[in-house]
Amino acid sequence: MAQDSAKMNPDEFISEARKNINIELSRFFERRIREISDSSIKKLIGQIADYTVQGGKRIRPILVVCGHNLFKEPDPEVYKASISIELTQSFFLIHDDIMDQSDLRRGKPSLHKVLEKDFVGMREARRMGENIAIVAGDLAMTYAYEALSETNFNDKIKNKAMKELISITKITGYGEGIDMLTTAGVKLKMNDLIRLHLWKTAKYTLEGPLLLGATLAGYDGPTAAISAYGCLTGLAFQLHDDIIGLFGKEEEIGKPVKSDVNEGKQTLLMIKAMEYSSREESQFIEDILKRGNVSDAEFEKIKKIVEKSGSYDYSRRLIEKFILSGKQYVKTINGDNNTKDFLLWLSEYLVTRKN
Amino acid sequence: MAQDSAKMNPDEFISEARKNINIELSRFFERRIREISDSSIKKLIGQIADYTVQGGKRIRPILVVCGHNLFKEPDPEVYKASISIELTQSFFLIHDDIMDQSDLRRGKPSLHKVLEKDFVGMREARRMGENIAIVAGDLAMTYAYEALSETNFNDKIKNKAMKELISITKITGYGEGIDMLTTAGVKLKMNDLIRLHLWKTAKYTLEGPLLLGATLAGYDGPTAAISAYGCLTGLAFQLHDDIIGLFGKEEEIGKPVKSDVNEGKQTLLMIKAMEYSSREESQFIEDILKRGNVSDAEFEKIKKIVEKSGSYDYSRRLIEKFILSGKQYVKTINGDNNTKDFLLWLSEYLVTRKN
Repeated sequence: MAQDSAKMNPDEFISEARKNINIELSRFFERRIREISDSSIKKLIGQIADYTVQGGKRIRPILVVCGHNLFKEPDPEVYKASISIELTQSFFLIHDDIMDQSDLRRGKPSLHKVLEKDFVGMREARRMGENIAIVAGDLAMTYAYEALSETNFNDKIKNKAMKELISITKITGYGEGIDMLTTAGVKLKMNDLIRLHLWKTAKYTLEGPLLLGATLAGYDGPTAAISAYGCLTGLAFQLHDDIIGLFGKEEEIGKPVKSDVNEGKQTLLMIKAMEYSSREESQFIEDILKRGNVSDAEFEKIKKIVEKSGSYDYSRRLIEKFILSGKQYVKTINGDNNTKDFLLWLSEYLVTRKN
Repeated sequence: MAQDSAKMNPDEFISEARKNINIELSRFFERRIREISDSSIKKLIGQIADYTVQGGKRIRPILVVCGHNLFKEPDPEVYKASISIELTQSFFLIHDDIMDQSDLRRGKPSLHKVLEKDFVGMREARRMGENIAIVAGDLAMTYAYEALSETNFNDKIKNKAMKELISITKITGYGEGIDMLTTAGVKLKMNDLIRLHLWKTAKYTLEGPLLLGATLAGYDGPTAAISAYGCLTGLAFQLHDDIIGLFGKEEEIGKPVKSDVNEGKQTLLMIKAMEYSSREESQFIEDILKRGNVSDAEFEKIKKIVEKSGSYDYSRRLIEKFILSGKQYVKTINGDNNTKDFLLWLSEYLVTRKN
């Protein structure tokens, strides 16, 4: 076990870590732009860089750093590896926005919309933007692997880290797959929803980054407690995300508040609202989710049903339960106490955030 | 240098190698299906498997085996690694068909068309098929890395092989990028076209697989001759591909003969035909490439112009030149003679094939 790292308050730690992560991201993209001569590809790399650098809270790479610091003294090389998760995130979001036809991401145009601008006036401008965004997403995934391969960890550790990254992109891909097949009409049961969140969100947001970090520390011990914290906190993170997706303010969450409903997303809020409300109200929600294009009045009515039926409270209670249980697991990890304190703090932060 | 492997005639070697490659592909997909419980994901994996297993000449994984055998005794583990290139190929083709809106691949429905079938009758069936195919392509790329990570080469070799695979997916991605940006209206010069073919085709078809194989053999010597053979033969391969795309028979090439023209693809045949023919004929070709939807009569006229103008002969001569030059490089490689003989034979095979 590592010595306890110097106590830092969470905000200080986050802002220090973010700074280092952003530096490594910039350096990574500078290397990519420098190694290639073609100007149109330089421009495309720049667009992927802007997309990656501009947004995001950097929670995922910070968790890589935490996973490492649990078991070893802080090491600047970990920041270099941690950006692989941020690049993975770009890859997911770029393709996700094409699939969902979302034109906004983090309050700015999504990448296919940015790329579309170069083709204004052409017959197939939107399609062109989406096509190049498919390639850009593919490149971001390649970059994720490249970021890891460029670090100077020893070969054994690097291979184990590669396996973790493979597991992250695979499981998240499976999550995307069932999500797509679900939006297409299948009615979700609670168990399916939990699995969907574990695969599509918790793996690459919490569990995977922590395990990747632990691997980089050369940690070879039991990982069940880390996984449990990651899964439980990841589930809570997603349930909270669904709440701010419905009740949040557009300027805070950076996307139209109605988009989840318009996409027909079967969140726990919707599922429980349909279960707990009258037949008529339940049918109303089901119809809107199928139809999309929700009006302001209908949207307000849905929010009312979610609150009145007890669905909102159900989600909130479940979030608390998951967070509490996740914290118990953190306490059992035989690792650096300051990092453990940070993870305990982070659980609360993730389910009280407004964006 | 390895001992010369037992002399085998090329057809025997290819059919033996194909058998082993197909076995490893099947085993890989069986492992993926076995490790997951969700039935809809099992089905999706099966669809990626069918797509990968059904088609293809397996030239690329065979070249991985050759790259290895140049420098080391044959090793069954190489077959296990070689399928990473076949999975990479699936990834490229799946996304390529979405971007090109091609509904046929190897004479069968492309993957987004296969996936669309589950949504017949739904408003957005085509979009659903494409969305799931985006995810399926992403998974195929992840599988490519996983296939490599599942081999038992030592950590140093495996990391070097990972770097080669990263380079392959990155360069090919750049090739896809400039191809997209080109189809969108920019007029290609000869140099741009050569670079496009080097990046989009030669890297993942010839050069990358050979270098990957050499890496797996633990080869650490000069690679310039291997790269030169790979690049030159890869260019010839693509130029020949363009010829059979225009002059081949639909039942042989497995896609509509007009598709290259309809997609507005600026092949060397088109570029040189425009350069060498009358102003009127040149304008005719340019207009058709911009417009697409070519009629039978127009298509025959284009073929006539390509032949009459000397463009066809120009491509054929360039192919011969590239092949001859590539062969010279093979002769300088300090490696197994039977494998070198096979590579010499393969050059000819690749530019005389009918599909």
